[in-house]
Formats: sequence, structure tokens, C-alpha cells
Amino acid sequence: MTKPFKRILMTGAAGGLGQRLRPHLGQFADIVRLADIADLGPAGPGEETVRCDLAERDQVLAMCEGVDAILHFGGVSTEVEFAPIMQANILGMANLYEAVHKLGIRRVVFASSNHTMGMYKTTDTVDATMPPRADGYYGLSKVFGESLSRYYWDRFGIETVCIRIGYCFPEATNHRQLATWLSLDDLVQLLRRSLLTPRVGHTVTFGISDNDGKWWDARHSRFLGYAPKDSSAQFADQVYAGQVDWRDPDDITLVYQGGVFLNNGPKYKP
Amino acid sequence: MTKPFKRILMTGAAGGLGQRLRPHLGQFADIVRLADIADLGPAGPGEETVRCDLAERDQVLAMCEGVDAILHFGGVSTEVEFAPIMQANILGMANLYEAVHKLGIRRVVFASSNHTMGMYKTTDTVDATMPPRADGYYGLSKVFGESLSRYYWDRFGIETVCIRIGYCFPEATNHRQLATWLSLDDLVQLLRRSLLTPRVGHTVTFGISDNDGKWWDARHSRFLGYAPKDSSAQFADQVYAGQVDWRDPDDITLVYQGGVFLNNGPKYKP
Amino acid sequence: MTKPFKRILMTGAAGGLGQRLRPHLGQFADIVRLADIADLGPAGPGEETVRCDLAERDQVLAMCEGVDAILHFGGVSTEVEFAPIMQANILGMANLYEAVHKLGIRRVVFASSNHTMGMYKTTDTVDATMPPRADGYYGLSKVFGESLSRYYWDRFGIETVCIRIGYCFPEATNHRQLATWLSLDDLVQLLRRSLLTPRVGHTVTFGISDNDGKWWDARHSRFLGYAPKDSSAQFADQVYAGQVDWRDPDDITLVYQGGVFLNNGPKYKP
Amino acid sequence: MTKPFKRILMTGAAGGLGQRLRPHLGQFADIVRLADIADLGPAGPGEETVRCDLAERDQVLAMCEGVDAILHFGGVSTEVEFAPIMQANILGMANLYEAVHKLGIRRVVFASSNHTMGMYKTTDTVDATMPPRADGYYGLSKVFGESLSRYYWDRFGIETVCIRIGYCFPEATNHRQLATWLSLDDLVQLLRRSLLTPRVGHTVTFGISDNDGKWWDARHSRFLGYAPKDSSAQFADQVYAGQVDWRDPDDITLVYQGGVFLNNGPKYKP
Amino acid sequence: MTKPFKRILMTGAAGGLGQRLRPHLGQFADIVRLADIADLGPAGPGEETVRCDLAERDQVLAMCEGVDAILHFGGVSTEVEFAPIMQANILGMANLYEAVHKLGIRRVVFASSNHTMGMYKTTDTVDATMPPRADGYYGLSKVFGESLSRYYWDRFGIETVCIRIGYCFPEATNHRQLATWLSLDDLVQLLRRSLLTPRVGHTVTFGISDNDGKWWDARHSRFLGYAPKDSSAQFADQVYAGQVDWRDPDDITLVYQGGVFLNNGPKYKP
Amino acid sequence: MTKPFKRILMTGAAGGLGQRLRPHLGQFADIVRLADIADLGPAGPGEETVRCDLAERDQVLAMCEGVDAILHFGGVSTEVEFAPIMQANILGMANLYEAVHKLGIRRVVFASSNHTMGMYKTTDTVDATMPPRADGYYGLSKVFGESLSRYYWDRFGIETVCIRIGYCFPEATNHRQLATWLSLDDLVQLLRRSLLTPRVGHTVTFGISDNDGKWWDARHSRFLGYAPKDSSAQFADQVYAGQVDWRDPDDITLVYQGGVFLNNGPKYKP
Repeated sequence: MTKPFKRILMTGAAGGLGQRLRPHLGQFADIVRLADIADLGPAGPGEETVRCDLAERDQVLAMCEGVDAILHFGGVSTEVEFAPIMQANILGMANLYEAVHKLGIRRVVFASSNHTMGMYKTTDTVDATMPPRADGYYGLSKVFGESLSRYYWDRFGIETVCIRIGYCFPEATNHRQLATWLSLDDLVQLLRRSLLTPRVGHTVTFGISDNDGKWWDARHSRFLGYAPKDSSAQFADQVYAGQVDWRDPDDITLVYQGGVFLNNGPKYKP
Repeated sequence: MTKPFKRILMTGAAGGLGQRLRPHLGQFADIVRLADIADLGPAGPGEETVRCDLAERDQVLAMCEGVDAILHFGGVSTEVEFAPIMQANILGMANLYEAVHKLGIRRVVFASSNHTMGMYKTTDTVDATMPPRADGYYGLSKVFGESLSRYYWDRFGIETVCIRIGYCFPEATNHRQLATWLSLDDLVQLLRRSLLTPRVGHTVTFGISDNDGKWWDARHSRFLGYAPKDSSAQFADQVYAGQVDWRDPDDITLVYQGGVFLNNGPKYKP
Repeated sequence: MTKPFKRILMTGAAGGLGQRLRPHLGQFADIVRLADIADLGPAGPGEETVRCDLAERDQVLAMCEGVDAILHFGGVSTEVEFAPIMQANILGMANLYEAVHKLGIRRVVFASSNHTMGMYKTTDTVDATMPPRADGYYGLSKVFGESLSRYYWDRFGIETVCIRIGYCFPEATNHRQLATWLSLDDLVQLLRRSLLTPRVGHTVTFGISDNDGKWWDARHSRFLGYAPKDSSAQFADQVYAGQVDWRDPDDITLVYQGGVFLNNGPKYKP
Repeated sequence: MTKPFKRILMTGAAGGLGQRLRPHLGQFADIVRLADIADLGPAGPGEETVRCDLAERDQVLAMCEGVDAILHFGGVSTEVEFAPIMQANILGMANLYEAVHKLGIRRVVFASSNHTMGMYKTTDTVDATMPPRADGYYGLSKVFGESLSRYYWDRFGIETVCIRIGYCFPEATNHRQLATWLSLDDLVQLLRRSLLTPRVGHTVTFGISDNDGKWWDARHSRFLGYAPKDSSAQFADQVYAGQVDWRDPDDITLVYQGGVFLNNGPKYKP
Repeated sequence: MTKPFKRILMTGAAGGLGQRLRPHLGQFADIVRLADIADLGPAGPGEETVRCDLAERDQVLAMCEGVDAILHFGGVSTEVEFAPIMQANILGMANLYEAVHKLGIRRVVFASSNHTMGMYKTTDTVDATMPPRADGYYGLSKVFGESLSRYYWDRFGIETVCIRIGYCFPEATNHRQLATWLSLDDLVQLLRRSLLTPRVGHTVTFGISDNDGKWWDARHSRFLGYAPKDSSAQFADQVYAGQVDWRDPDDITLVYQGGVFLNNGPKYKP
Repeated sequence: MTKPFKRILMTGAAGGLGQRLRPHLGQFADIVRLADIADLGPAGPGEETVRCDLAERDQVLAMCEGVDAILHFGGVSTEVEFAPIMQANILGMANLYEAVHKLGIRRVVFASSNHTMGMYKTTDTVDATMPPRADGYYGLSKVFGESLSRYYWDRFGIETVCIRIGYCFPEATNHRQLATWLSLDDLVQLLRRSLLTPRVGHTVTFGISDNDGKWWDARHSRFLGYAPKDSSAQFADQVYAGQVDWRDPDDITLVYQGGVFLNNGPKYKP
């Protein structure tokens, strides 16, 4: 069967999501180039691997050579000191799009994050036209990535789908996870739609399954044709069994969408 | 099984909706306190009953003592003279929230009404950000209740879900009822979501089932996770059989969402 | 069984959609009057036929006499020189509504077109409050029809549902058709809802099935109760098999919703 | 010179604003009827006086007889217990509009208040389409008045201009007063525009002078033609002299538009 | 002094506005070509004249040859039968833009009309993003002109400023004229800004002076730098002297912005 | 006379704007601390100077010690390679707010830039609720600064006014400069209002004088009370004399608000 692309690149392939997605990428291209700063193990059939530090301009350029499209999942994905986040997620993005521009690559799917909007309240409904409200350095670096890719679209016509990924783990175990849960199959479908839709321009969308409770409204990206098949409803009874968990009026991790990320990171160390 | 609350209070428990809801409340709390100005009959297992005139400040304070959360369904629910509506629905609300504030109760679910928006047209789609358009004294008293509870949220952090309840009867028999129908099971689910969601702030939502035709758009309260299971579509064929019922161009009960309420009440008496 | 109307009129009954709809109209009225400038063949049971040139005021008046409601599908439906479009679609609409006004007919369902918004991008989500963006003479004539019918509502109280019909053919064979596909059954349901809803005022709605990818958002006309049962998802696998079709960066038919209509018509002839 | 009206009524004429406005009302009508629950002193030329308790339905009806238009400034204007506010401002309004409706009076100018929006922040810009956010019982009673008058417009065609009056005193002495200051001359002009504009429907507008800093945006009522001639800029230098007054981070009277009203009233008594 | 253009064309130069504007056009171009279906008198210095029936394609093409920019004031400007409006204003516009496109002319200033929005109420504030609401055939033809010019911008990059001209006569003598008044000097300034601004895209703006009362909000076209110097305030005292003119509750010419146009035209003849 | 603050800090005091502002800062504080990476010359009366590299965390912390408020004008202000912009404007901002947070400083006035929105068109009207559209690395770094300061407000209550400064030079010499011109006096006033307003939260405002043509709408920050006294209108006649400058249809510096910045920088080097 003819595949959509000759070669696609996935960065961050050794990370948590990267490892789970890896077996599902073969459908998109004859060759899947996997990149990471960490070890990727041996390349399987239809795979090739690259070691790359995103903060290194030349490595990034080399990594991108010859690919048709990029799934950019690389970088730091937790709340740590600003310096490493800046190197991987800010300088890394600048390096990546410089390479994309030089090489004439036309589309990127960018793994953005719900932490771009972590300071919205859990009673808010956020859509893609509302200003980001990051909840820490990590979220701020993802906002930067969205702005940078927007610039490359506005000025150079390079297309990007920014997916603000929710809680993509096998099970949802609390209220926040119920609202933000994303199944792996739904994520794969969303990547597929982001790659195959003929025109995407610069689009911010939300990576969640068809959960009952939602904080995010994807109406502006319906053109992608993403139709999630899974729902966190399967986990709801267990989560809501027992006494209500809203008794502590001072718990800001229940007030803001960012949850525990609000209290993570070095800014809170003594 | 552990229940979410120790004790909840339902006011208006002897009214139409109150009676139908009563058997479904046991899931929410170890003790369900039922209150009304009318007789409530004997208390069942897990129930306790209170007689209370909402216009009497001291009675209201006593009624609220010791409860974790309140389902406020009490008051006048038809279009009558202003005086009794003012006593039960306006002074009653003021008394209730004064008590809630004094006693440190943190959440109320308020049975508001679609008559807060009865002067919108049947061709309008109303959401929670649009200004109320009451269709009479009753609707105005519910708008007051929404404003008052908003104030108690803004100023004192007391949370309220205002449910603008549609047509909650077993069957829908005309076009208006099809659009506004709410099954009892869906109402129970909505109460459950309003009670268990960790943070609700001050939220206005709409109590309708998953009907085909809708006048109201609940997008701003999707975070509640309310997912109606029923639909008025089951009644549609019977309603639309026969000649179209729109022949009288002067019938304002077809033009405005409030329906027959527009022509009810003492203002129209000769 | 009593039918909703005594007599309805369908114009354009010899056209592509007209022929496919004809067998489904009997449910709406005791007598279905079919009109066209072309031959309609013999009238079947419950049918009557009229030859009518929409540009001829007197013929249009005669065509409309005695009907309760009109399904207006007549006129030019392709991108040609301006003169014939003006005669059939602009003068024709003016003639039709003049007749409707004179005769006291209260409702029209107008077959508008997605080409009223063909200059929106395929990454846009369009709703009924956004300004039209026609993609040619044909689209402009439909925008005129929507404006004219709005005037007759604002000034004279004549109700119209403008249906911006998508791609109404048996199969969808490319990305654009997947996004805009409308099954015949869903169109019949939408006509039914447009005719039977007691009040419709002046409503612009979108004629598409429940497709996964959507460019149009019908939230402002949910009151119609249209609930499509079909979806273009059945055609998606075949459309997206093989290499991605977005490789030509200069192909404006992928950028704009109007698709190939953008390059049709006499304006592009040498 | 012919005056616009034969007879107008001003309620609350013995109150603070009422007394200052009284000498300016003669331009509007041959006869100015002044009403209050308190003593109004002797009637001057072109004046007549009425004692009226707004909570008394019959007195209100009598007070309104024979007038062409009403300036409704009556009621409680401070934050006190709910009961007296309800009597004068809620029951009083209901009585007033019942009388207006019975007597066929076509227009009311209602002295609403900025305390209908006192829970907005001093960094917000509020316009007439945004939901009210009252800051206490007094503000809530004014929100009720706006809702009630809206209903009488929607249902009965009685026109009202609701003026959310700012700080109408001779001098502004702090930041809040600078933002909300209204000169008497500008208020008189606004009353004039509210009375003379041929159609006003139901309009919410803002009573402030042409101050440099503004919290309110009157763009939706520009049709009134109100063009303030005064500005609080004359008081700014004196207010901002000396050390900045924002040093207390816990002072909510600087955060919310309602200012000291937030801490007034019986709810805060020990 | 170097003038901005070599040659500009003004259509409708024999009409009411055309005649008043003619002496002011010399500042814009070395040669001002004046066109009309009626006699234009002898050409003055720097002028040339052309007779042209806008409904005649070839005449229109000839009229446009060699010009840098067009001020399109031609066509029917009153409410008459549809046929002549269609010929001059609809077919005429189609002919004009076909010529503009063929000849590579880059900018048109189109004299649109406030009757594109005559069915808005006199209590509405209309801006350029709101849908037109024409008040008759004339207004509908101007809406068509706005749509057509939008299409030529979207598809071909031809720039147009659509000026919805108010009441452009020496004096304002009633409320409607006060709200919509435009001085000739301000109109000349607006034409100048429309011609000289480097990029205008497709812009809808409002031709009114700096009147106190306004129905239209030009915030979306502030980039034009139009700063009116005149105001209808000079006529207000005379207009508002005497008894208020709003006593007839059934006078729709006070309710809708279109004023007497609502009752003009052949549709109202017996 | 008592001054508003004891000590304020201005960064970037050796830069172009810094030098022009320096003589005007004495009104704000007893002591003005001036900081820059470049030489600041000798401190005048009431001044103290600090050398500081913003990319150096410890230097930044030291620079901020003991100040009440900060005017942050430091960093790179042209379009150069990403690395130096990242060091000064991104890492520099992170260092600054870390220090502000540690030291309990409550307010920053941040010199943001119009290049945060340079990819909007010159026909757009931009307000503070619309998403940024940076026109290069410099603009992107300012967007980052706005996001970062938003985070410190949302999470820690540190207040910032972000001023998107226009063209702040003595004279405007082309169309873009006319639209974006800001006089020094108006800038000083805007700084004053940003410092003295009791509460500013996180506010994005626009630094322009009262020019005739405007691309930016500051309605959301009117509460600041900024009332510009100057206008670029004084330069307009000279700018618009001679032939229109819009003849090159391919000149993107006329299409986008960023002007020549769009073509600056290393991305365009061969």
C-alpha cells in the first residue's frame, strides 16, 4: 500500500509519549526517522534513528534533512529550572524552525501542552482564540513554541498543528484527569488528521478524548476531522466514589486547570 | 458505601419536582433533610423533614444548620401576584444566602428557570453569557436569585450552580415542550454533577435532555460533565403529525421561548 | 393521514436536486406543485406542474398562487456569465418575493449555497453570523437572495430558511467533498424541519450531514431540530489512501472552501 | 417657549441628587411633579409636590396619574438591611411599572447605579452587554430594577433608560472618584437626551463625565447623543500628589469598582 | 505641486453629490474624468467628461480605460422599481469591476449607503462586522455592491473602500438627520483618506461627521485616519425645540434607521 | 514635595529611549536607579547607576534590591540573531521576574513592542484581547515577556503594565510612522499613569499619541487614564504630499504592521 509520506521525523521518540507512539507511526511513511537526545535502541523495520540535542543548531539541521513532515515531541516535559527548559524548548524550537525553513519542509505537528493554559480555572471553557495562560516555565516554553510556529506560518507559509495534549496515560484517577484524558488511539488519530488534512495553516487544537466533562472547546479546528472514539467516562464511577474531594477551600490545584503543576518546580523551593 | 455528603438539604421537597426527586436523593448523603412550607409526610429512612417559610429569616437559618450542601427548589413556581413571589423567591433567597454565609455552607444548587429567558425568541440560541430576559414576575424573581448567588460567589466565595430547568414532565406534547424537555433521570444526573464537581464557582447551566431541537447552548458549563442520556425525539412524530400549528401569525406564545407564561398572571386580568 | 400543508411549491424541480427530491415531497402536502423552466414530465399522483421563467414577473406570480409554502430550488446553479445568473437568481428572487408578499405566503425555504462562503479558507469554521464571502457570480447571486429574503422578514414578516447546501451527491471522493457532503435523506429531513418548525424568522443554516470534519457550525439554528443521520466518514478511508494530496503549495482550490468554483467561469477565459 | 412635555414626575426629589436636580427640571415640562417619602418643602412655580411611599401600590398609582414621563430617583440609596431595600427598591419598582403600564405612560428614566457592577475590577472595562455584578443589597436591587424595566419593554413596549450613575458630587478626591465622577451639568444633559431622543427602547447607559480614566464604555448607547462637557481631570493633580496609595495589597476597595460599598452594610457587622 | 494620481474617474458626476464634489476633486489628480448617463456640461480645466450607461458593458470598459483609481458614485439613488435599480446598481457594478479587473486598476472608492443597514433600529450601534440589513431595493443593490467588491478583493486583490454615506446635505432638520449628518468637507476628507492610504484592502466605513449622537461605529476603519472636523451639534437646538416628536407609537420611521425610506417605493403603492 | 516612590529602577537606561526618558524620571521617586549593560555616565542628583547584564541572574537580583517599582526598558531592541535576543530578552526577563518575586516588588512597567503584532495587516485594528502576531525574533521575545509577566500576575500577584511602544522618535516621515507615532511627553504620561494607578493587574496597552489614523485600540486599558496630548497629524501634509506611495503591489512592508522589520534580520541573509 502506498503510504502518505516518504519520510517523517519524530523528535522526542525516547520520551514517554514517544515510546508509546513509536509502534503506530509506520502507517504514515515509508521511513520513520526517530530522534532523541537519549538512546533510542535499535531501529526496527522502516525506522532510522538519530541522536540530537535540540539546542545544537547543526545537529538539528542534520536531523531534519530529507523529511517531508515532522512530529515534534522533543524537549523537556516537566517543570524544572528555567535554563534547561530554555535550551531544549525555546532554543530548540528556534533551531527546528530555522532548519524547517531552510530545508523547505512544509508541515510540523507540534506537541504543545495543556500547561499553556494551566492558569485558567477548572470552571472555564477555553478555546483556541483565547490568550494562553501558562502555569510555569514549561507552559511558557510551549506558548513560545506556539508563537514561533505562528510566525513561521504568517511570514513563510510553514504549516503547524499545535496539539495541546491532555493527560495521555492509560487510566484517569481523579477529576482533573477525567476532564483532560486522551487515549493513545485518539492521539494517533489526531496525528493522522494533522498530517493528512490538505491545508492546516497554523492551528491550535486540543488533545482530549470524547470525555463527558470538558474544559476545552475545539470548535475552531473541526476542519481537521478529528473524531475521538474513547472517553474517560469509563473511569468516572471509581473516581467519584466516596466523599467529595472538594472540602479544602484553599487547594488551588482544584481551582486552576494546571493542577499540581502549579506547585511544582524550583520557584517553590525554600 | 461511603456517600458523598453527610447531610444535604432539599427545599421545596413537597412541590412537583421535589416529590419526584425525593426518592433519588439518598445516593448523595447519609441524611437528606427535606424542607417545605407544606406537609412533607413522614420521613423515610435516611430522611429528616423541616417545615419552613422561606420568608422567615429565623426559620431559614434553623433549616440550614448542619448541612453540607443545599438543593434549593423552594418558592413559588407559577406566575401570580408580585407580593407572594417577592416573599418566597426574593426575600426567601436573601434569607437563604444570609444563612448559608453565616453557617459556612459552601455550595448551593439553585433551581432557576427557563422563564429567566422567556422573552428570547424561539429562533434564538441562548447561552449563559447572554443577559436574562424574564417573561414575568416569576422569571424576574429567578433572575434575582441568579444575581444574588453571583454576589455571594464574587464577594464571599460561596458556590452555586443555577440550573435553568426546562419542561420536566414525563411527556412532551407540543413543539415548545420538545425543545425544552428534561427527563427526571437527566435532572438527577445534573444534580449529581453539580454536587460532585470539585469546583463550580458560580455557574448558570440549562436543564434539558439531549433533544434534537435546542434553544439553549450549555457550552460554558461543559466542565460539569453533564451528559444527558434521554431525548424528546421519542415524542416528535406524534407532535408533528397533522397540519402545521404555525398558522396564527399573532400567536406570541410561539414567538417567545416563554410560551404560555407570557399570557399568564395578574397583569393580564381585566 | 393529514399532511402538514394543502399545497406546496417546489421550483427548480427539473434540476439535479429537484429530480432527486421530487419523490420525497409527497409527505409535506396534499398537492405538490412542481415548477421549472425545463420540462418536468407528466405529473404524478398528488403533483401538478408549471412551466415558469423566473425572470418573468407575471409567470412567477401565477406560479405562486394558492400555495402555502415554497421550496425555492430554481435558478442557475453553476458559474457562468453574469447576465443569465442575474436574470434567474437575482431578478428571479425579486420576482418571487414580490409574489410571495402580494399573495400572503408566509414561508420560503431557499436553496442557498456553500458558494456564498467559498472565499473562506478550508481552515476556517464559518457560522451564520459571519459575513458571506462569495466565490463568484453564482455565489454572489445567492448572497443577494439571502439579503433579499432577510429584508422581506425584517420589513414584512415573511419567513425564510436559507440552506447553504453542501455537496449533495451520492458519494464523496475528495477532501472537500468529505467536509461538505450531504446525504439526500438528511436534506429531506432538513426541509421537513424547515417547513414544520412553528417559527423560523429568517434563518441561515448549513446543509451537511454529520461528517467528521466540518467547516461550518450550525449552532445558531439548532432550534430547527435538524439531526443528521448520515456521515461522509464511510468514504474517508478511500479518499485518504495513498500519498497526501497537498503537495502543490500553489493550489488555491485546496486553500479556499469554494474549491474548483474559484477557477470556474468566464472571468478566467483568455 | 414650548416645553417638551406637559408634565413629568421626579421621584426621590428630596434626596441628595433630587435636591440638586430640582432647579434644572423646569426646562423639560410645563409642570414638574416632585415626589418623595420625605418632606419636599413648598412647591415653586411650575412645580407640584406629592408625598409617596413607593412600597404602597395605591400611592404609587396616584403619584403617576397624568404624567408624560418619569425620572425615577426614589428609593434607598445606601447599603442597609435587605428589608427596607426590598420595600423601596424592589416592591417600589414593581409598583411603579404596574402603574406606568396601567396608565399608558411611555417612558421612564431610571436612576440605576454603578453598584450594579461593583464586583468588576478596577482594571475592567464594562459595557452594557456584560452581566451585572452587584456589590451588595443596594446594587442587587438596582439590577432588579434594570431587569424589571427590561421586561416591561420586551413585553409591553414601555421605554426605559437606565443610567448607572457614577460619583455625582462637586469634587473628586480619590482615584475611584476620578474614574466615576459625574458633574451635575452633565447629568442634566444626560437626562435631557434620555427624555428627548425619539426612541430609546430599553437602554443601559453610564452616568460619567468625560474623565481621562474610565471603567465604563458607553458605546452601545451613543445613539442618545450624550456628549459630556466636564472632566475630573481638574482634580487629578491633587489626588495623585504624594505617595502612591496602592501599598496595601489586601485592600479590596482598590481592587473592585464598588470601592467602600464592598465593606458597608449589615452583612459585615459582628 | 505633484498630485497623487495622474487620472481618476468619478462616476455619477452629474448627480447631487457628484455636482457638489466636482469642484473638490482637482487636488487628487492631474486629470479628473467625470462620467454620468446625464449631461455633465462643459469640462473645466483638468477635467474630461464621458457619457456612460453603467448597464452597457462596453461603455463601462471604455470609461475606465487609463484611470488610476475610481470614485464610484453612479447609479440610481432612490427607492424605485427593482428593474432600473438592477440595471444601474447591480449590472452596473458587475460591469465596472469586470472592467477594473481587465484593466488592472487597483482601487475603487464605492459610494455605498446607510440604507444597507436601514432595518437596524435607531437604538442600535452598527459596526462594519455586523450583517447588512437593507431597507429596500436600493439598499439591497448597495449590499450587492459591497459583496461584489469584497469578492474582487478576496479573489483578485482589487481594493475597495465602501463608504456608507449618511445624510450629506447642508443642514440637518430632524433627529435622524442629526445622527447621520455628513458635511461636504468631511466627505472630501474621507475620499482623500480612502485614496491616499497605502493599503485599504476591502473596507466598509461610515460617512458621518463628528455628531454627538451616532448610530454607527467606525472602529474597524480607524486605520484610514479619517478625522471629521464638523458636527451636526450646531443644528440640535433647533431640532429639539418644542414638544417631543416621539408621540406616535406606530411610526416605524422613528424605529428603524432607514427612516422614510422604509415607506418609499413601489412595493407600497396600492 | 513628596514623590510617589522612594526608589524606582529603570533598565536599559543607556539605550535610545532610556536616554531620552532619563531627565523625566525624577518626578517619580526620590532615587532613580539607572541600569544598563553599557556605560551610563555619571549619576546626576537623585540618580544612582548600575552595570548589569540581564542574562546574569545574580547581577539582576542585585540590581533589583531595594526598589519599589521597575521600568524595564533593557534588552536587545533590533532584529538580530536569535541567540543574543534569547539571552537578553528571554533569559533576561526570566531573571528579572525571579528577582522581583524573591524581593517582593509589586509592579513592573514593561517596554513591550508593536513588533509583537507586526504580522497584523495595516488594515487591521488590534486590541489587547487579540493574539499576538510577532514579526521576527525580537517581536517573539517581547511576546514571551508579556506571557511571562502574565504568569507572574496570575500565579503570584505581581502587577505589570506591558506598553507596546510605537514609533517614538521626534518626527514621523511616512505612513507607518504617522499611524504609530508616540511623542516623548505622551510616553512620560503613560509611564506616570502606569506607575500611579492603584491597581493595574496585568495590562497590555499601546504606546501611541492621539494620531488620526490608528491601528490599535486601547479600549481595554482606559482605566489607566492615559490621555495623549500630541498627534502625528502635524506631519501628515508633508508625508502625503506628492504621488501616492502604494504603487508597488508586492511591497509587504506596506501590507503588514511590522513594516521594514519584516525584512530585517539574519533569516533573510543569503
